[in-house]
Parts: sequence; structure tokens; C-alpha cells
Amino acid sequence: MTMHDARTRADADGGADGSAEQTEQPRFGWHKGYVDGSRPDIRVPVRRVHLTNGKDVTLYDTSGPHTDPTVDTDVRRGLPPLRENWIIARGDTEEYAGRELRPEDDGVKHTAPRGGLRNLDAVFPGRPRQPRRGRDGAAVTQLAYARRGEITPEMEYVAVRENRSPAFVRDEIAAGRAVLPANVNHPEIEPMIIGKNFLVKVNANIGNSAVTSSIEEEVEKMTWATHWGADTVMDLSTGRNIHTTREWVLRNSPVPIGTVPLYQALEKVDGRAEELSWDVYKDTIIEQAEQGVDYMTVHAGVLLRYVPMTARRKTGIVSRGGSIMAAWCLAHHRESFLYTHFEELCEILRAYDITFSLGDGLRPGSIADANDEAQFAELKTLGELNGIAKSHGVQTMIEGPGHVPMHKIKENIDLQQEICEEAPFYTLGPLTTDVAPGYDHITSGIGAAMIGWWGTAMLCYVTPKEHLGLPNKDDVKTGVITYKIAAHAADLAKGHPGVQEWDDALSDARFEFRWEDQFNLALDPDTARAFHDETLPAEPAKTAHFCSMCGPKFCSMKISQDIRREHGGDLTTEEIDEGMAEKSKEFAEAGNRVYLPLAD
Amino acid sequence: MTMHDARTRADADGGADGSAEQTEQPRFGWHKGYVDGSRPDIRVPVRRVHLTNGKDVTLYDTSGPHTDPTVDTDVRRGLPPLRENWIIARGDTEEYAGRELRPEDDGVKHTAPRGGLRNLDAVFPGRPRQPRRGRDGAAVTQLAYARRGEITPEMEYVAVRENRSPAFVRDEIAAGRAVLPANVNHPEIEPMIIGKNFLVKVNANIGNSAVTSSIEEEVEKMTWATHWGADTVMDLSTGRNIHTTREWVLRNSPVPIGTVPLYQALEKVDGRAEELSWDVYKDTIIEQAEQGVDYMTVHAGVLLRYVPMTARRKTGIVSRGGSIMAAWCLAHHRESFLYTHFEELCEILRAYDITFSLGDGLRPGSIADANDEAQFAELKTLGELNGIAKSHGVQTMIEGPGHVPMHKIKENIDLQQEICEEAPFYTLGPLTTDVAPGYDHITSGIGAAMIGWWGTAMLCYVTPKEHLGLPNKDDVKTGVITYKIAAHAADLAKGHPGVQEWDDALSDARFEFRWEDQFNLALDPDTARAFHDETLPAEPAKTAHFCSMCGPKFCSMKISQDIRREHGGDLTTEEIDEGMAEKSKEFAEAGNRVYLPLAD
Repeated sequence: MTMHDARTRADADGGADGSAEQTEQPRFGWHKGYVDGSRPDIRVPVRRVHLTNGKDVTLYDTSGPHTDPTVDTDVRRGLPPLRENWIIARGDTEEYAGRELRPEDDGVKHTAPRGGLRNLDAVFPGRPRQPRRGRDGAAVTQLAYARRGEITPEMEYVAVRENRSPAFVRDEIAAGRAVLPANVNHPEIEPMIIGKNFLVKVNANIGNSAVTSSIEEEVEKMTWATHWGADTVMDLSTGRNIHTTREWVLRNSPVPIGTVPLYQALEKVDGRAEELSWDVYKDTIIEQAEQGVDYMTVHAGVLLRYVPMTARRKTGIVSRGGSIMAAWCLAHHRESFLYTHFEELCEILRAYDITFSLGDGLRPGSIADANDEAQFAELKTLGELNGIAKSHGVQTMIEGPGHVPMHKIKENIDLQQEICEEAPFYTLGPLTTDVAPGYDHITSGIGAAMIGWWGTAMLCYVTPKEHLGLPNKDDVKTGVITYKIAAHAADLAKGHPGVQEWDDALSDARFEFRWEDQFNLALDPDTARAFHDETLPAEPAKTAHFCSMCGPKFCSMKISQDIRREHGGDLTTEEIDEGMAEKSKEFAEAGNRVYLPLAD
Repeated sequence: MTMHDARTRADADGGADGSAEQTEQPRFGWHKGYVDGSRPDIRVPVRRVHLTNGKDVTLYDTSGPHTDPTVDTDVRRGLPPLRENWIIARGDTEEYAGRELRPEDDGVKHTAPRGGLRNLDAVFPGRPRQPRRGRDGAAVTQLAYARRGEITPEMEYVAVRENRSPAFVRDEIAAGRAVLPANVNHPEIEPMIIGKNFLVKVNANIGNSAVTSSIEEEVEKMTWATHWGADTVMDLSTGRNIHTTREWVLRNSPVPIGTVPLYQALEKVDGRAEELSWDVYKDTIIEQAEQGVDYMTVHAGVLLRYVPMTARRKTGIVSRGGSIMAAWCLAHHRESFLYTHFEELCEILRAYDITFSLGDGLRPGSIADANDEAQFAELKTLGELNGIAKSHGVQTMIEGPGHVPMHKIKENIDLQQEICEEAPFYTLGPLTTDVAPGYDHITSGIGAAMIGWWGTAMLCYVTPKEHLGLPNKDDVKTGVITYKIAAHAADLAKGHPGVQEWDDALSDARFEFRWEDQFNLALDPDTARAFHDETLPAEPAKTAHFCSMCGPKFCSMKISQDIRREHGGDLTTEEIDEGMAEKSKEFAEAGNRVYLPLAD
């Protein structure tokens, strides 16, 4: 593997030598770099932080071409179709006419003019509308390929990205322990993998509401979320322009896009849950499949007999999809079309390689309801559906709670892993207390870190606005950063290979007063730099640890390292002790000056 | 026990009926209330949240008289000496002339005019300067009383506060599993207890720096921190006016105040660590003891032979006190005066009932250094010192790390509990990763919640400015709120009796759309209300769960509750199912309207 940089001229000028780089920062505190795979079209993006001591730190990068100064990204043209040739080369898919777009796809009333979709045509004039699907309903899924022993370019891409062997990636997918969400109609994505034996991933939810935000805002939210580290994005848009918004998001997204098709289906029946039908739902699935949605949340586990179990709950059913299906089951008093048509659904998803995210419609919405009868009854059904989906060759992950106190978290992941044969767990938080609305990114970040450590593969972020309002750009950033902390803390606790190098590099910079390096290595360089410059006086700032206490000329670390270097090897405690005693004389002769440090 | 309210007239007017209260809020979203003990001078403050459904929720309150509208608090007069008569009544203490105040107590150079202390005289003209101490060095500690089987008013106060029996409180203190920090010269405090079998507590650090903040600012920071829930406050002031600042903080603080006397001692020798001596340190201890400091961090576990163990570390010694003592040990090449004079130190502390907080001067400052030789070597020494302190009747807690990845946290609390005979553990975080400067309240909040669940008695907060700068008022609030979340999540996980009632009350309010109740029950009502009003449109805001999906007339919760009430008892799943089937007809007849909900 060879590595190279994509630098702006400004970066290149400053990047050459450390001292210059201190003053002249790269645009984001890091440079875009690429790691080459075995073939020229496998180039895996990384963040290269060039330290002032000449070393490099390489970090995982989710931001896509949007942060590559050498790529001119135009939201109206969309991203280059990175995977297109890989998909075509497999020869198991075909282009076809595809479903005709209708005004109601954009939530436009039947009587209204076709404004919505003419807009859409105008959006991507360059793109053919011809969608692609498996020839004769063939399973064109990464799961099917892995089971056949094939290593796809997507698998190799992921292997490079996660620093694992391609065979390991293939075997984890084949075993159903990991998913590689990649719709054949979403060639723009940079392949990523979700599984407990890989880095813990983070999902960010976006979505316009009838009241706020435009299409451009949603695309901006998506690129903003991936800039800060979101590994996937779910578009939960409702109301107007839902199809067009999704098209924009998909064409510009370097990460897999997930949706809850039920939301759009509900729009098509004007919000009347009981008027939902398999036909309306199927129509919506195909519409989104042809656009390129990579994974879909399906609440097929909400069975009629489970609904009464929520009656004794403190907060009933809090999942939107779950409540829609429960309402349908109650109105018709029979099992939902999602459950009765599940096998047909599998046939559709496998023709596009859409990954199931089996939704936990009955997840607890309060501490009181955690791990209750309704939740675990649904989980058992999700286990059955997981087996059916796999038998059809469909990649599958399972969604989890919710609100769960710390001592009940482990039971969730353990039970899910057992019942769902180690299928990737994808949890919302969990929130570890109900008492802090306005801070639920923190109440849930605690639970997310713990459940990630114990095996959850992907964490769905929660923003400070949870329970209170719609997240704005700042909330999206806060949610993503908080969840990247939880995911990285989990990777550390799992002992994931190489993960601690990031912590070590930052701690080295901190210990050696390399402030610019500390900022650039931070999860959020902007905030770290701003906080430092805002309140910390220059000198005390550099005295927050031991060697500074003794002055630059006298630091137990440096001394001992010097002594060790002289002896060219490890020393006994006695030897180091001697060296210290010597140095303590020097210290006295040097005037014993100890600076005034900061409180620790 | 009887309960009564302290209300402002405005509150009383609005408080009478629920509907009025919805529009007319109490000052902080709650009313100050008191629970009476067995005698008129035991009145334990509580927060009474009056809900719009007529119910009350009673919460623990740390804010002191500052939030009692019937008490006129004047920072220049200080708080009423609540415990004075209790202390006098015990008859085992005596007033004495006390140490003469000196300019250097305020960091004023010997050559400078006595400005500092004349200021001090002017600050509290009403207060006699006569300090109090144990007669003939008697142990006037809560530990000594508890061992004799006595239940002090302080113990009963705490029992009411924690909803435990006075005997239980006494026994936990007698066993050394809990401490009740209460210097005989700090009669203003409202007694609180720190121990694993009580509510997890939170400490907030304040402290002026030479560069920023005035005395008034520090007092304001203290009242601000306790308003948001800080159970104790540590004054880590350095530089000028250090004595006067502490006097102001103590006289106005309703919570125990902790310090690190070493910081002031270092000031007295102009910051030259090697010039520190037992005499200077002893002088400082007595100065602060006479002012009323309730607990003191003492880094007596930093032994000369441990210092070299930090040489191979990534971040050496990051504790300020630890580094000062390490510097002293290196300069003199012998054990520190804290260690060699420890028994004498015990004799002083027990005469004022000052609680030891044995500092972990060698705590890890990075993930790489967690649970290493140096850290655990010091812990063993702290275990020995804990035994010595107890043998002198001195209350003792043990300080803990620091930076620790999740999978190494439990070893810390388990080892500390074993080595220190279950003495209360008091930890800083721990931070679960090094990569997020600017967000270390979150990286550490994760570790704090976990170690709290596993038995840590008090959590020292970390603010967003950790590693970067000095916390301002907003940072103090964010730090306290984050740590109250961690502490409450830990109490829930421990199954602490009654703790979940708070979560349940808030979740009930959430489920029943009682928005004002949800705000007032929130850990931070201001932020919850602001976030709601900022972005959430009125109607969608009320449709985020199941019963709203079906409209006010049709909610599985309400229906099932109605049915249950009719039958006057629990129903079988079948019976509820029937009821639902019936209602589903009504639902159809009612037009099956389903509102558009928010994304969950």
C-alpha cells in the first residue's frame, strides 16, 4: 500500500517544514490523503495530521470528496460514481426502465401541478434515470458474494479502511456478523462496514420537516455530519419534496444512506395509518430502492399481540414507525403487511442489495419500561425475521433501544446477539436517565459507549434537542462529536488494534506542549483551539504537568529518557533513582525555580 | 416528619391552582421546601416541584438559603451558623485566640502593606475571629461520635436528607464507609454525607487565578455551582487574596468546602517547591482549619521511590499536588514531610473534624498510563495512611483517577475498596479517551457514571475547558449538570431506593404532554424550556408518541387504563386485547385520523 496526499497549494507551502505548519494550518487541521489498494480504482481516503515533530498520524475519514481540495464537488452534479464499474463488471445486474415518478412522491397533492418532479428532472440533468437491479431477481448482495467466497472491491476497500485482511472482511460478512450497506443504485459511496469486529460506527439522522429547512439545508446537514465523522446518515424527511430531497442527499453522499420507508408511505395515504397497504408500501420501497437507499428500517416485528403489552407501560410506544404499525394493527385487528409480506420484501431488497435494519418499534421510551415484556417479545420476532432475511441472502442488522439504565444495558446486547445470531446491533443511545432533557446527547452518550464496548456495531446519535425540538447544524455537530467519543471509547475498551495510537499521539503532544498538534489531533480542532485561545494565558498554559513544574531543564520524563538512551536500554529503578539524585543537584544549582502551575 | 414550603408571594398566588401555575412559574421551576426532623433546629431543605396534575415531586437540594425567598442572604454577613449550637452543645470544643493572620496569608509580599488582611477584617465585621477546636486535642469528629454509638444532629439531618435511618447513617460513618465533612469552624453548612450506600455526590472546583476573577466572582461561582447541584466545592485558588477569597467562600457556602493546602503553602515559599517544609505546611493547615475548611486533599502517598516509576510514562505526573511533592522529594532526595509527619497531621485534623481526602498524586494523565505500577503503588500507600488516619479518629476518603479506558475502570474501584477498607472513593472522571479536548466533560462523564455505579461515592466534575483553559460560569454549569447526570444514572443503576421516582415523574409528564411539568422536573429547566421554545412547533411537539398517533380520543395507554379501572384490577392480555378490538371500531368510526408525528 502506498500513501499520498491531496493538498491545497497553501497547505503544500506550509506543510513542508514543521515550524511553518504551526502558523499555516491546513483547512481542517488535517490533510486529505489516500491509501491505495491492489488496483488503481481502490483509493481509500484518510485524514493525515502532520505533526510539528515531523511525524504523521493517519485517521479514519468519512467526509468524502467534499474535503478533497483537488476535487471540485458540485451538489447539482453529484459525486463521481466510484463503484459504478465494479457493479457493472460483476455482470449480475441490469438497467431497466424503472418506476415512473409521480407528484405524490414529493408529497404533492394529486390535484397540484407537477412542480415537484419537474424540479427533480432539473436537479441532475446529467444523470440517466435508468435504475439498476439484479438480473432475474438474482441476489446481488455482498452477503451472497461473501458466501460464495468472493472478495469484492467493496470488501477490499473496507479491508484497507479498517486495516484488516480482505478475507477477514469477507468471512465476517458471510457469517452475518457484519454488513456492508451498498445499494447498486448508490455508486457514489465510499464502502464502509458495520460489525462488532470492526470500528464502532456512528449514524446521524437528518430530515426536513414540513415547517423548517430546505433541500439545500439537508444536503448541507449531511456533508456537515460526515465532516465531523458520521459513518452513515438517515434521511427522515417528511412532508413536501421528500423524493427530491432524498435524491439530492443520495447523489452527494459519500456514506450509506438509510431511510424509514414507512414515513413516506404514510405521506402517500395522507397520514392515515389504517389506509397503509402492502401495495403503497411496496411502491415506496421500489421508489427508494431505485434512488439508491442503502439500508431501510422496517418495523416488521410489531405484532398485534404485542401491542397490549405496551398498555401497562409508562410511556407506551415511542418509536414513530412502531406506533404507525401498532395503529394499523389495532385498526385492522390483524398482523401488519410488513410481517405477512416479509419474504416478498426480502426478494425486493436482495435485488438492489439494500440492507435490512429491523426496527425496534416497541423499544422503551423511559427508564421504567426498559427490558420489559413488549421489548423482548419483539426482539424474538426480529430474530426470526433475521433468519428469514439471511435465507434470502439479504444483509441484516437489528435496531435497539432506547431508554435503559446502566445495569440493564448488557442484557440488551447479550440477548440480541444470542437471538439474532450475532447480526450487527444498531442502538439509539441508550439513554441512561430520563431527567435531563436538553442534555440527552450526554445521558445517551454514556449508554452508547458502554453498549458499544459490549458489542454494538453502530450507534445512532442523539442530539441535545431530543424530546424537545428539531436539531439545527450546531446540534448535529454536538450529536456527532458526542457519539464519536462514545464509539472511540468503545473501540479502546474492546482493544481494537491500532485505536490507541490516536490517544497516544495526542497525549504525547499534550505532554510536550505541542499545542498546535494537540488541537489538530482533537476530535474537534476548532473548539479545542477556540477554548484555549479564549481563556488560557500563554505561560500557565504550558505548566500543567510535572516536567514543567521543574522547568524545561528539569523533567523526570526527559531525564530518565536521556539516561535510558545513554545506557541504550531499560534501567533498573535503582539506576534511574541514581540519575535522578544527580539531576536533583543540578536542579538545586539551577536555582530550584518551580513555576506556578494551573490547578489540575 | 412534616413538610412545608418557602414561597414567594408570586409563587403563592400562582401556586394555588395548577392551571395558574402553568403560566406563573416559580423562580427556578421549583419551590424551596423543608422537611422537619425530630427537633425544631433540624429543617432539611428540599426542592418541591408542584406539578400541574396536583402532585408534588420532592428533590434533593444543595443550593442552601440562597434559593429561599424568605431568607435575606447578604454575602458580607454570610449565612446563618446552622450548626453552631449543636457544636457548642457537645461541650468538647473550646474557643481560643487562634493563629495571627499575616500578609502572606493573602499572598502579599512581606514588604507590602497589610492591605490584604485589613480588607479581610472589613469583610465580616460581625464575626468574632475566635476559632474553635477540640478541648485538649480531643477527637471531635463525626467518626469518633459514631464509634461511640452517638447519633449527632448532623447524622439525623443527613438521614432525613437521604431518606435513611439515623442509625444506618451512624453505622456507615462508624465503619469508615462514609464521611460527613463538617469542620467545627464551618457551622454554616447543611450536613451531607459521602459514601457508596448513599446518593452519589458531585464536587465542583472553583478558584481564582492570578490573572482572572475577583473574590466576588468566586463566591458567585460557588453559589452558581450549588444552585445546579454541586454537593461540595473545592476552592483551588492561587496567588493574591487566597485567604480572603476562602473566607468569603466559607462564610457563604451551604456545602462543605475542600482545599489543597499545599497550593497555599507553595505560595508562602514563593513557588519554590524545595523550600516547602513541615512548618510552613502545618502553619497553612492550621490557618485553613481555623477558617473552617471541611476536607483537605493531602498528597502524602507520593513516595520518593515511586517517582522513577513515572519516568516511563507517556504523560509523567499530571496532578499538581503530586508534581509539587515529587519535585520536593527529588530536590531533597528523601520522603516528603507529608508522609513523615502524617500522624501529627492526623492530630491536627481530628481537633477540627477536617476530613482527609488522600490525593492520588500519581494518577494517570493519559489512557496509556492507566492502572500502571506508579498509580497502584501509591494506592497501596494511601491504604496504609487510611488505616493510620482512622486509628486517630479522622474521617477519610481516597482520591482516584484520572484517564482510564472503560475496560480498566472497574479494577480501580475494586482495588481501592479492598486496599482502603471501603473508605469512600472520590474520583476525577475518569476520562475514557484522550482525543476530545473541549469535550472532556463528556469523555469523563462516561467514566464517572460507570465508576459511580460500581461504588464511587463522589465524582469530581470536569468542565469543557479541561486541558485548555480556566472554566467560566457557563463551563461550571455544564460541568455540574453533566456530573449530576452521571451521578443520577449511577444511583439508578445501583437501585438506590426512591431514585427512579424522578425519572418516572418526568416520563409521565412527557407521555401526558404536561410540557411545563417536564421542563420544571428537568435537571436544567431553563435549557429544556429554551430548546423547546426555540425550534419546536406547538402541534408536532405534542405528537411524539403512540397515543398521540391515534389522537387524544384513542390511546392504547388511556384505553387500557380505563378498562382496567372498570374491572378494578389487572387484566389478562386477552381481556385488554378485546377492549382494544372494541376501541378499534370506535377509532374507525371516529374517522381514523392519525396526526403527522415527529421523527423519533
